[in-house]
Amino acid sequence: MKFQNDLILRAARGEDIERYPVWLMRQAGRILPEYRAVRASLSGFKELVETPERAAEVTVQPVDILGVDAAIIFSDILVVPEAMGLEYQLIEKKGPWFEKTIKTEEDLIFAATDFDIEDKLSYVLEAIKIANKEIDGRVPLIGFAGAPWTIFCYMTEGQGSKTFSVARKILYTNPTLAHELLNRITNVTIKYLKAQINAGAHMLQVFDSWAGILGDEQYAEFGLKYMDKIAAAITEVPLTLFAKGAPSSLSNLGEMNCNTIGIDWNTNITDARRIVGENRTLQGNLDPCALYSSHSEVERLTNNMLNSFESKRHIVNLGHGVYPDVDPEKVKTFIKTVKNYEIKY
Amino acid sequence: MKFQNDLILRAARGEDIERYPVWLMRQAGRILPEYRAVRASLSGFKELVETPERAAEVTVQPVDILGVDAAIIFSDILVVPEAMGLEYQLIEKKGPWFEKTIKTEEDLIFAATDFDIEDKLSYVLEAIKIANKEIDGRVPLIGFAGAPWTIFCYMTEGQGSKTFSVARKILYTNPTLAHELLNRITNVTIKYLKAQINAGAHMLQVFDSWAGILGDEQYAEFGLKYMDKIAAAITEVPLTLFAKGAPSSLSNLGEMNCNTIGIDWNTNITDARRIVGENRTLQGNLDPCALYSSHSEVERLTNNMLNSFESKRHIVNLGHGVYPDVDPEKVKTFIKTVKNYEIKY
Repeated sequence: MKFQNDLILRAARGEDIERYPVWLMRQAGRILPEYRAVRASLSGFKELVETPERAAEVTVQPVDILGVDAAIIFSDILVVPEAMGLEYQLIEKKGPWFEKTIKTEEDLIFAATDFDIEDKLSYVLEAIKIANKEIDGRVPLIGFAGAPWTIFCYMTEGQGSKTFSVARKILYTNPTLAHELLNRITNVTIKYLKAQINAGAHMLQVFDSWAGILGDEQYAEFGLKYMDKIAAAITEVPLTLFAKGAPSSLSNLGEMNCNTIGIDWNTNITDARRIVGENRTLQGNLDPCALYSSHSEVERLTNNMLNSFESKRHIVNLGHGVYPDVDPEKVKTFIKTVKNYEIKY
Repeated sequence: MKFQNDLILRAARGEDIERYPVWLMRQAGRILPEYRAVRASLSGFKELVETPERAAEVTVQPVDILGVDAAIIFSDILVVPEAMGLEYQLIEKKGPWFEKTIKTEEDLIFAATDFDIEDKLSYVLEAIKIANKEIDGRVPLIGFAGAPWTIFCYMTEGQGSKTFSVARKILYTNPTLAHELLNRITNVTIKYLKAQINAGAHMLQVFDSWAGILGDEQYAEFGLKYMDKIAAAITEVPLTLFAKGAPSSLSNLGEMNCNTIGIDWNTNITDARRIVGENRTLQGNLDPCALYSSHSEVERLTNNMLNSFESKRHIVNLGHGVYPDVDPEKVKTFIKTVKNYEIKY
């Protein structure tokens, strides 16, 4: 595939770049009025996720409107547990909610692995194909999935939580069940990511949103082990691993078969580089709240971050998803500042 | 004051101890059936907080029933913002909720400092006096307050949040307002802590529950600066500082005028000791979820933690508040294991 702009792929691979590439987690589906117009025409977030033409449309919007260096397919990490047998709802102002959850071995009937992923999640794969047609080679398209530990959290807890104590309880009371479920999620996730590649994803990112709630030993056993299995299985396209809130996992992530490691806004870039070394690209990490500042302050804070880079191996992003009430004009200032920045490496 | 058991005070000061002292954050007011009976006789959590006799009663329960080495006064960190002018409610399964919040300079009328704390929070001080009478010198009584940054989060956001983006936004858009409010909270908190000492608190702990949502630079400016002011002002009794989720603040905390530093279950004890050095006591840090394990596993995990101590300067606790659905018998196993452990230092 030949791209008009393949900056992000080159940055991921550690090749020479003329400037740092930039995109934003949650760039599709949060801040743009054009997105809200599409969403308002449907019954809600889930219908949008499941309607390939519209999902593709909001995927492409940030490429057209914001000028980002990559698109990311508009979807949700919870399509995987749903495909396995646990339907979810998204409750306004509350977040995801699962009626059924996995508590015992018997509940594993709701954690199927023997289904045709291309069929069950065809709406995502179709959206990828349509989005790529519309992007028409301008920029690469990123596919994604939740990390097994994060998906496990939702499949057992059934909803968001400050402590995820229901999910974490199982690690102590029934580690065998935990590993069985994590293995199943991992196997399905690998198939799902491969299907996204086949459908046309040019890069992949695995999000471990709840990495930070486990201590190091448990995260190694119940989190990183499965991240590693996924990383080992993905050889076709550049892969980004993002363990939010778990900076102590950086050295382990740096040894996995990945190109890029995401860092949140609480992680010091110099520290992360020292730990990860020169053979991985770092992605991040402006505080999403920085985009609430004035335009000149957004510019200053973005330049501060760029000045702290000591390598060409960076993909610029926020340290978390962009917040819904951020002014898109501030996002444009962020992107413009990155594009105007003269790379030293 | 002469105690039958002053182990925790000696551990805080780094004096010799015959065994490690142990207590649990949230030991009062969560797990005991005896607590639930008291609470069921009242309209709810807030009435209990505001009724000194009953607050004292549940404060003493864990001393009688669990055999902990300290009591902690049953109260809530949100009594401070309420005293300043922002009333809160506790909504079942949702947590705290404030009708009014601080968004602009005008809202600072709801952040008063010129009131008589001994009068406004007399119910807490009265509860301390009654609890001490009932404890009758068996163990010391711990007083506490929220750290200014955490109180700021609630006063601006008005409720719990995964990101506290409303609170953090102010740090970018109006840092002057942020510092004004943080200064006010700090001044009131110092007065409040001193009042607790006068009422009979033998130790104090300051909880920064939301330390972990700020990057290092912002936490230094908007969090640690005010923790430091409090620490400098408290010279009468041993002080514990707990910045949950912010292990990178350990070296700064270790330079403050405190005896003890709390560590959460995600923090490696050996790392914490290396950073903090030998001149501070560490408090923590068993994963609260470990208490969901079998009795033998609770014992094993507790001994593992104790074996990782390389100093006498430890107060044993969980790495976070005990979860409400933990079996009190498991808590007893945890405590018994600590009491039976032979200290090497």
